Amino acid sequence: MNVNKRIAKLREIMADKEVELSIINNFENQFYFTGYKAIIYSRPIVLTVDTREINLIVPSLEETNARNETNADKFYVYHETLKEDGSGGSHIEQLKKLISKYPKNIKVGVEFSSMPVLLGNMLKDAGFELVNIERDLEEMRFIKDQEEIDLITESGRLVSLALKKSLENVRDGITEIEFDQFGTEALFNEVAKKHPNSMLDFFVMSPSGLDRSILPHAFSNTRKFEANEIVIHSRQVGLNGYRAECERTFFIGTPTEKQKDAFKLAQEAQAAALDFIKVGVTAKEVNEVARQIFKKAGVEQYNLHRTGHGIGIGLHEQPSLRYDNDLILQEGMVFCVEPGIYIPQIGGFRHSDTVVLKKDGTHLITEYPRDLDSLIF
Amino acid sequence: MNVNKRIAKLREIMADKEVELSIINNFENQFYFTGYKAIIYSRPIVLTVDTREINLIVPSLEETNARNETNADKFYVYHETLKEDGSGGSHIEQLKKLISKYPKNIKVGVEFSSMPVLLGNMLKDAGFELVNIERDLEEMRFIKDQEEIDLITESGRLVSLALKKSLENVRDGITEIEFDQFGTEALFNEVAKKHPNSMLDFFVMSPSGLDRSILPHAFSNTRKFEANEIVIHSRQVGLNGYRAECERTFFIGTPTEKQKDAFKLAQEAQAAALDFIKVGVTAKEVNEVARQIFKKAGVEQYNLHRTGHGIGIGLHEQPSLRYDNDLILQEGMVFCVEPGIYIPQIGGFRHSDTVVLKKDGTHLITEYPRDLDSLIF
Repeated sequence: MNVNKRIAKLREIMADKEVELSIINNFENQFYFTGYKAIIYSRPIVLTVDTREINLIVPSLEETNARNETNADKFYVYHETLKEDGSGGSHIEQLKKLISKYPKNIKVGVEFSSMPVLLGNMLKDAGFELVNIERDLEEMRFIKDQEEIDLITESGRLVSLALKKSLENVRDGITEIEFDQFGTEALFNEVAKKHPNSMLDFFVMSPSGLDRSILPHAFSNTRKFEANEIVIHSRQVGLNGYRAECERTFFIGTPTEKQKDAFKLAQEAQAAALDFIKVGVTAKEVNEVARQIFKKAGVEQYNLHRTGHGIGIGLHEQPSLRYDNDLILQEGMVFCVEPGIYIPQIGGFRHSDTVVLKKDGTHLITEYPRDLDSLIF
Repeated sequence: MNVNKRIAKLREIMADKEVELSIINNFENQFYFTGYKAIIYSRPIVLTVDTREINLIVPSLEETNARNETNADKFYVYHETLKEDGSGGSHIEQLKKLISKYPKNIKVGVEFSSMPVLLGNMLKDAGFELVNIERDLEEMRFIKDQEEIDLITESGRLVSLALKKSLENVRDGITEIEFDQFGTEALFNEVAKKHPNSMLDFFVMSPSGLDRSILPHAFSNTRKFEANEIVIHSRQVGLNGYRAECERTFFIGTPTEKQKDAFKLAQEAQAAALDFIKVGVTAKEVNEVARQIFKKAGVEQYNLHRTGHGIGIGLHEQPSLRYDNDLILQEGMVFCVEPGIYIPQIGGFRHSDTVVLKKDGTHLITEYPRDLDSLIF
């Protein structure tokens, strides 16, 4: 990752806003600026950037990892073990030490949705003025560079492969988690073969049946698939930190006429949005194209979420394809397009695919048939 | 889950502190008080409790789920789609609406480490006094009731089974993620068979080799196991939201003499801590028992973390088995005991097991041999 370029851009933003120190708590932003992704658990990590230095506050059990993976100038390490020099036992103590080196009354950039009140109060008590730089960091991540797009594109291939493998093995009588497992195993084998020393993230859920498929988000559980039922199979794969998403609604056995109708509407709404989305249109126009199809069919009230979202480091990230987003879409943005309807007693219906916006057109990077005949098993 | 009892206890705490409204952001605490666990992604959920009502702020795509799973009195639903009544498009708007019903100047209980500055500022601007109730909530979760202990105990059996299955399949030439997958598949099959309609969480990592095993936390990647090397295999399983942990350090082929010595020290430190931990001792005494063994052997500087931590809803939770924790351990507490040393050029050494503290003694709920001979493959 070319993190130096990102840090340079952050410093430009800071200069514009007269912010002399940024304190970054969001772990996705920490990864974006350092290339370093820790397993967080109960031990916070804090990244700070000023005009000259990059500092990292880490627990001692992350010190080696952080020193290997980042180009931070200084490390403020806190310990869980008794040190003879009495050095700090918490990230709070280390942050106090760090901020004591800056003049009072400076402006400090923080993410208002990620910085906890505890740290916010500490900074205010120390005399700093807090400035919300969250939106600036979101905007930096809007547009992916070629390295990011290459990783996301390969994640698109991998997530499609995993989804295909699960669907090849579907049958009634297996549980949601067993169904997921077929594709996950294929994914692991493929990544092991093709990507040595790489980091793999994955997410999968397959809520099944009338009661569960209408929940847009539900963890897979050990409910067994029955004959003649509906499932939404949803997957994300992240290769070395960059993700793609692919989702299909499918049937085990025969759908009802009402299910067929709803399926076709969701398929049509996605096809229309995928056909429309390109450089130069606005986010809300993409949302509207899908919404109109649901509206004309009289099922708008079952459309429970936006048409799509950005993806990259985050499972969901900005920009949002939402009714109130005026943003003009640009080259290098990556979206999941997934309009959905969730109708009690009939089922939930949503396909999702990931697209990369380029000057020469919109590139679909996930692939599996979307038509009803291909999705009846 | 008997969440009513928990809500009643929370209201007692609130009365003691003259807090009239609690606003809970931490998703583990939300689960603790409602039994409802959502897939969060980009859409915040906020739980509020006052003297009479439980309210939930949820996105529309979680509404059905939240209504099915919780006993909340009111739901404040925010939408990503255009509503004719102009109802709120964000959790912020819904929270504004909710707090407008309370008198100004009341005390509001929040978790200072989980509430973001954005919401904290909003509450302060509205005239409320924020009171940190984080520690009270942590303390409520210290002691598990029988239902929680039963789930954790079964998770202990499941995590041991998964660890055993991966170890049965270890060989050089496979990658960390392929090695993990053997146990994960066995876990899924077992849970599918034994626990219908249940929710399963799992976490697994197996950093291998000299460079990676010395990182206490490292995501499994596609590095291939080589002959004669060291691995720390670490697993957690959560059944219906309650977790247990089991970890073993093992060798593929022959360890060096220095590795054998370090292995035995870590094994001895864990055995001593497991033997010592019981109702009535303090958290720091447990930590000290393990630390003394490392200290006497002159390797204390490689002991990068506390001896252990509480476990339950959280991967790590309080109480912490740490040098500065004076807490007296009580019946119903559950701990992972896992002193570790991480020595450059030699490797990382840590076993972890989960124990439940009862009046009649300390019950080990995870099981796999810990001695060197059993862990050379």
